[in-house]
Amino acid sequence: MDKTANKDEEEMGSTVCQADSFRYTPIGIVRSPFTDTAGMPIQPAGAKGVRGTIALRPDLTAGLADLKGFSHIILIYAFHRSKGYSLEVTPFLDTARHGVFATRAPKRPNAIGISIVRLISVEENVLIIENVDLLDGTPLLDIKPYVPAFDAFSDAKAGWLDQTAGNAGSVRADERFR
Amino acid sequence: MDKTANKDEEEMGSTVCQADSFRYTPIGIVRSPFTDTAGMPIQPAGAKGVRGTIALRPDLTAGLADLKGFSHIILIYAFHRSKGYSLEVTPFLDTARHGVFATRAPKRPNAIGISIVRLISVEENVLIIENVDLLDGTPLLDIKPYVPAFDAFSDAKAGWLDQTAGNAGSVRADERFR
Repeated sequence: MDKTANKDEEEMGSTVCQADSFRYTPIGIVRSPFTDTAGMPIQPAGAKGVRGTIALRPDLTAGLADLKGFSHIILIYAFHRSKGYSLEVTPFLDTARHGVFATRAPKRPNAIGISIVRLISVEENVLIIENVDLLDGTPLLDIKPYVPAFDAFSDAKAGWLDQTAGNAGSVRADERFR
Repeated sequence: MDKTANKDEEEMGSTVCQADSFRYTPIGIVRSPFTDTAGMPIQPAGAKGVRGTIALRPDLTAGLADLKGFSHIILIYAFHRSKGYSLEVTPFLDTARHGVFATRAPKRPNAIGISIVRLISVEENVLIIENVDLLDGTPLLDIKPYVPAFDAFSDAKAGWLDQTAGNAGSVRADERFR
C-alpha cells in the first residue's frame, strides 16, 4: 500500500507502509544516562537502580491512566543506532556464536528491543523508570503492563543462556553491535 | 527519509521509513487455528496446548541456530487486523475503562503485540509452538529467547490486573477490538 494512499488510516498510527511492511511512529522518547553503547549494561539486571525517564507524546497522555498500579512495565523500542544485521552473532554473554533469534543482540532483521523496567512514578506524560538499560534518545514504540500471570515463567529453560544469564548483572556492552 | 532513498539500508531490514517513523518487514508468518478474533483466547494462558507454527522466511533460517534449547520464546508481531486506536479501552478482563498502555488491547497507537509461547520444535525454517493466542496469518516481526533471569518477575504488582489476570485462562475475545 502506498504510504500516502490512506490519510485517515495514517493519522491513526501504525500503518502498512508498503506491501508487506509495517510502519510505526514513536510514542515517546527514553532519557537515560547512557549516551554511548560501549560500556552500557546489557540488560535491566545490569542496570539496577539506574533511573531514566520516558517523555510520552503529550497527545497520548490519556493512555497512561491506571498504569501507576503496575510495578513493572514492558518497553518496546527501536534499536535506533543499530544498522544492518547478522544471522549469527557472538553475544556479550558468550564467546561462541549463536543464531540471532537465540540472542537479545540489537543487530536483528527487525531492530526492535524489549526491556522490562521498574515503574517509579507517572506524572502527566512523564514516567520515571528504574533499571534502565536503554540508550538516551531511544524511540519508544509501545508500553505494556507487566503481568506475572502472563509473563513470569520462572522454570523456563534458557538454552545457552541458562549458564550465563546470571552474568548480565556485571557484563558490559562493547562496540561490537555498532 | 524517502523510502526509496537508500536501497542498501532497505535491503538490510528495518529502516527509517520517513522522518520519525520506523518500518519493519515481517520475518515470517504465524499459522494458528484462529481465523477470527471473536472467540479467541486473549492470552497464551487461555490457549494452553493450542499448537501453531511459525514459517520463518527461508533466508533467515540461520538465525534460528541454538534456539532449540529454549522452552519459551517471545514473539513480537503486528496486530495486523487492528485499525486505529483508543487511548482508553474496556479490556476483555474488566468492565471498567483503563488507559490503553495499562492494557494489552490490540488497538494501540502502535499495534504491536507480544506473546510468550512454548517452543516445541525447530526444523529448518519451521517452528512448532504451543499456547498460541495469535490469529492465523499474523505477521511476525521478531523472535527473542525467553530468559527467566531477564524476564520472570513473579512478585511484580499488576495494578487492576492483579485481581483479574487469572481469568485470562477462560475469558474469550469478542468483537470489540475489530
